[in-house]
Amino acid sequence: MTKPFNFIMEATDGNARAGVLATPHGELETPCFMPVGTRATVKTLSPRDLEETGAGIVLANAYHLYFRPGAGVVAGMGGLHRFMAWDRPLLTDSGGYQVFSLGDTARIDNDGVAFKSLYNGSEHYFTPESVTKLQEDLGADIIMCFDECAPAAAERPYLQESIRRTAAWAARCRGAHTREDQMLMGIVQGGIDLELRRESVERTIELDFGGYAIGGLSVGEERPRTLETMRFTAELLPSERPRYFMGLGDPAGIVDAIAAGIDMFDCVLPTRAARNGRAYTSEGRLNLRNAAFTDAEGPLEPGCGCYTCRTFSRSYLRHLVTQKEILGLHLLSLHNVTFLLDLARRARAAIEEGRFSEFRSGAPAGF
Amino acid sequence: MTKPFNFIMEATDGNARAGVLATPHGELETPCFMPVGTRATVKTLSPRDLEETGAGIVLANAYHLYFRPGAGVVAGMGGLHRFMAWDRPLLTDSGGYQVFSLGDTARIDNDGVAFKSLYNGSEHYFTPESVTKLQEDLGADIIMCFDECAPAAAERPYLQESIRRTAAWAARCRGAHTREDQMLMGIVQGGIDLELRRESVERTIELDFGGYAIGGLSVGEERPRTLETMRFTAELLPSERPRYFMGLGDPAGIVDAIAAGIDMFDCVLPTRAARNGRAYTSEGRLNLRNAAFTDAEGPLEPGCGCYTCRTFSRSYLRHLVTQKEILGLHLLSLHNVTFLLDLARRARAAIEEGRFSEFRSGAPAGF
Repeated sequence: MTKPFNFIMEATDGNARAGVLATPHGELETPCFMPVGTRATVKTLSPRDLEETGAGIVLANAYHLYFRPGAGVVAGMGGLHRFMAWDRPLLTDSGGYQVFSLGDTARIDNDGVAFKSLYNGSEHYFTPESVTKLQEDLGADIIMCFDECAPAAAERPYLQESIRRTAAWAARCRGAHTREDQMLMGIVQGGIDLELRRESVERTIELDFGGYAIGGLSVGEERPRTLETMRFTAELLPSERPRYFMGLGDPAGIVDAIAAGIDMFDCVLPTRAARNGRAYTSEGRLNLRNAAFTDAEGPLEPGCGCYTCRTFSRSYLRHLVTQKEILGLHLLSLHNVTFLLDLARRARAAIEEGRFSEFRSGAPAGF
Repeated sequence: MTKPFNFIMEATDGNARAGVLATPHGELETPCFMPVGTRATVKTLSPRDLEETGAGIVLANAYHLYFRPGAGVVAGMGGLHRFMAWDRPLLTDSGGYQVFSLGDTARIDNDGVAFKSLYNGSEHYFTPESVTKLQEDLGADIIMCFDECAPAAAERPYLQESIRRTAAWAARCRGAHTREDQMLMGIVQGGIDLELRRESVERTIELDFGGYAIGGLSVGEERPRTLETMRFTAELLPSERPRYFMGLGDPAGIVDAIAAGIDMFDCVLPTRAARNGRAYTSEGRLNLRNAAFTDAEGPLEPGCGCYTCRTFSRSYLRHLVTQKEILGLHLLSLHNVTFLLDLARRARAAIEEGRFSEFRSGAPAGF
């Protein structure tokens, strides 16, 4: 395991955990929501906007950056932190999910995956070694193993083969990884099959990664299965390492994940919803296109400290959204990201004060 | 003339002027570039972004706000300043230009103009009185007379009829205007016919407006005609009132306008150019899509104090622009507006120090 990544547990409350992860770019308080900056930008938000939301870490995507602008360009500009002017922690996803989900052309063998570029259809081949090197060139603080994301509908024999291949690839990523200033995280797969999840956990933790991610969920399965599998898997993971649930960004889901002992989660939903004119609030998700907001004077969320809520009425935001003004997408994104970061911060405070159950019962319901 | 709008001339240098216009929302230093916020938002920029650029005044458009969200909504929200959260001076254009230029369906008579909405094709009728009332409801500090913008190709007899109608409408706007906390500006028309410009000036200044605008130029005529007509007209306007040249936003044109004694100018070009991936610099207008910027380390404009130039490389900006990331449009808009505001500020300092000719000879050439 890489050394700079001390993970200190400050408090627990039930399975919920309040921790601090040390990284070369500062300490990260967990549990935390990670805004997604797929192409080295969290859509519509500048680094100073993100600092204002209190984002502790931002995620970028190795698949997209491999194609545009290319890892060589990013490395030549001094790495991803300097390139995107973000000096707090960064995490890159390995591109495993994108290779399998974008374009529908992936052909897998035991050595790696051949696939066509989403950008221009050209042929490419990723291996655990090449993707590890790619993420070393990009230079995020936390990088992910290259895994196979099997289809949600895969049969059990295929799923079993897949988790074994993912574990073999994880060992190869581990072997290829050289940068001590980066933490490499393993990824547990296995669909919603709890026995396969157990096997995947065992095969992954024996490789001793700095942290562990739960992948391959929230991909179309029914929500109770997502939560059951998340809880089951989280309990099997070593308590002294950070746990990352990949792809979760609704308020109720975040609270469920924290209750299950998850430390990190990410999702494009809050920024995508914003670009569709939707705002996260304690009333649920508001559609700003609704005519009821035409002359609504109040802020999106009373008491919210974000610039949007401190400054603008729902009426003005509705005007911007209906007129397709870019400022509207920006202001809603700023609010939605703040809303989820605030939710995780309040959960953390509740854990520290031993009142997480109480917090959870008053938290926003699903929307 | 409305009273709160003292215009103090601090310095002159040749025909160039450095003034201060008092408004109910603070003092405005001239010459100044006015960023255009057509639909109550300067595209991609928040009010705090605009404050950071040092914008002294923002322009909005009565035509667009009449349709969306409607003057009643804006008035109900406390007026345009509160609606868009901008507490410095605001100017609304009367919608004259839009009525005649959008949709090609305007039918004019001496009382007003019938036209179809750009938004849904519905029939509307604007008169000098209704447009003055509309701008009073919106509540900007400076409002404009409702004028006829005759086609650039109009024959002289039509142009003559048009400037007389515009003068008659100006008198009706003057009569209908009631708010003492708003300055009403007259607009001089007459195409590139200097005799008609002279007649239009005489008919407009005899109505004694708080300031005078030069309209109907930069609409397709050759640039030397624009500048000749601008210079000729500016000299005829009363020196003690602010002069506004409508629709000018290229760096060379701005310097020419200041040299001619113009105090205010506006244009959508800097924000539109930004949304097309173009940046204003002292090297000229850069197209960030150009592959030469792929690994260009420096800022857009060395020495520029804007957030974009302080923070990001040309390489990153090119990445954002080519990937159609909204952040790129925002960062380029922020820079382009800052660039033009800086140009006007530097011109003002040169006027105050009696070295405007020297400044002018070193200013950016046309692009």
